Amino acid sequence: MSNEHALLPPEELQARLQAIGEERYHIHHPFHHLLHNGQLNKGQVQAWALNRYYYQASIPAKDASIVARLPTPDLRREWRRRIEDHDGDGSKPGGVERWLVLTEGLGLDTDYVTSLSGLLPGTRYAVDAYVHFVKERSILEAVASSLTEMFSPNIISQRVAGMLRNYDFVSEKTLAYFTPRLTQAPQDVEFALGYVKREARTREQQEQVMAALRFKCDLLWAQLDALHHAYVSPALPPPGAFRP
Amino acid sequence: MSNEHALLPPEELQARLQAIGEERYHIHHPFHHLLHNGQLNKGQVQAWALNRYYYQASIPAKDASIVARLPTPDLRREWRRRIEDHDGDGSKPGGVERWLVLTEGLGLDTDYVTSLSGLLPGTRYAVDAYVHFVKERSILEAVASSLTEMFSPNIISQRVAGMLRNYDFVSEKTLAYFTPRLTQAPQDVEFALGYVKREARTREQQEQVMAALRFKCDLLWAQLDALHHAYVSPALPPPGAFRP
Repeated sequence: MSNEHALLPPEELQARLQAIGEERYHIHHPFHHLLHNGQLNKGQVQAWALNRYYYQASIPAKDASIVARLPTPDLRREWRRRIEDHDGDGSKPGGVERWLVLTEGLGLDTDYVTSLSGLLPGTRYAVDAYVHFVKERSILEAVASSLTEMFSPNIISQRVAGMLRNYDFVSEKTLAYFTPRLTQAPQDVEFALGYVKREARTREQQEQVMAALRFKCDLLWAQLDALHHAYVSPALPPPGAFRP
Repeated sequence: MSNEHALLPPEELQARLQAIGEERYHIHHPFHHLLHNGQLNKGQVQAWALNRYYYQASIPAKDASIVARLPTPDLRREWRRRIEDHDGDGSKPGGVERWLVLTEGLGLDTDYVTSLSGLLPGTRYAVDAYVHFVKERSILEAVASSLTEMFSPNIISQRVAGMLRNYDFVSEKTLAYFTPRLTQAPQDVEFALGYVKREARTREQQEQVMAALRFKCDLLWAQLDALHHAYVSPALPPPGAFRP
């Protein structure tokens, strides 16, 4: 059996997933650096928050389509927790609501944000691609596409520290979205990583897992590409999109 | 009945569709100007052709999903002609094959182009968004989204004349994709425009027709945004994408 068809030991699969993030995770995108280093103006930060809202708002639909396909109560329960993290429980605000605290803190009208009327088409297509991917691919690939959370505590720490230091128009209160994510993301990853290490039983499935993570990294990256093009350089928002 | 709820006369609907194109059609995108004015280098033109291939290659799937939903033989026959235009009839090459003449004439390996491995994620998401839109929305909206052809003879004339004049690496032979489109597009438009003028029987449906055309303009625009970002300014192709 040639090497490239051999099943990888689970630890080797994990190392390769880690390497994909090191190459492709959007922590390396120039827009991310500008955002965290205080090199964006308020309008550019608004554009980021406005667009990223659509991603946040779509996550529960993505997760619900996974819950709809998971075969057992314990798997569904585990994944249902993610929906609750994003949608809240009626008393504790969820991630979507906390994101709107951020956009409002940045001076954006909530009705405007949730109307999506200023959204970049590039954001919409990338986010919708994620929702479609999760609906249409195998459960294994759908779970694997969540593994960008392996890298998110790192980016969140950079983001919160950098933004608080560099922008007088953000505060700990407006950045409250991120705090619970620092504990939720590792918990989510532990489950999802265990799942793909256990359930990818052929090399072909392991390759699908890696491809799903690459796909997910690419779509986070593409969202920053769209923002960079529209609001940084050459700073040409397409017709109809938000103008700071 | 207030004006904004009143059914528009068909000619007024057509005028509004025309106005959407005048504002949003990608003939106004800076990448289009650079392409036609000879201000791109060969690698940038390759990137355009490589990415646009995915759009061309996806059109028959998009059209087939419309044929699958049209209710009568004469409507299906009319739309089936579009698939034949793109896929050929076994003797006359179709649009997809003619596009590969262009990419090959630009020095790109056909296997590489059709593998899609160098595609910009932004292109993939925009094109897939089109295919999904056509599958998921009403037939009326699916037909309306084809109406960018109202504006395409104009852009094709500019493109062919400008590219032949300005680039020594293109020829009439490599641009042969475009010649039949100059007659196919007006024929396609005549049908689709007649269809939406006739079948949009409420103002709400007329608004859906206009929104579908805006959606389509936006996704053509977003493809040029992705190219501009990756290959012109700041010229940062995402990880894994084609590098000239």
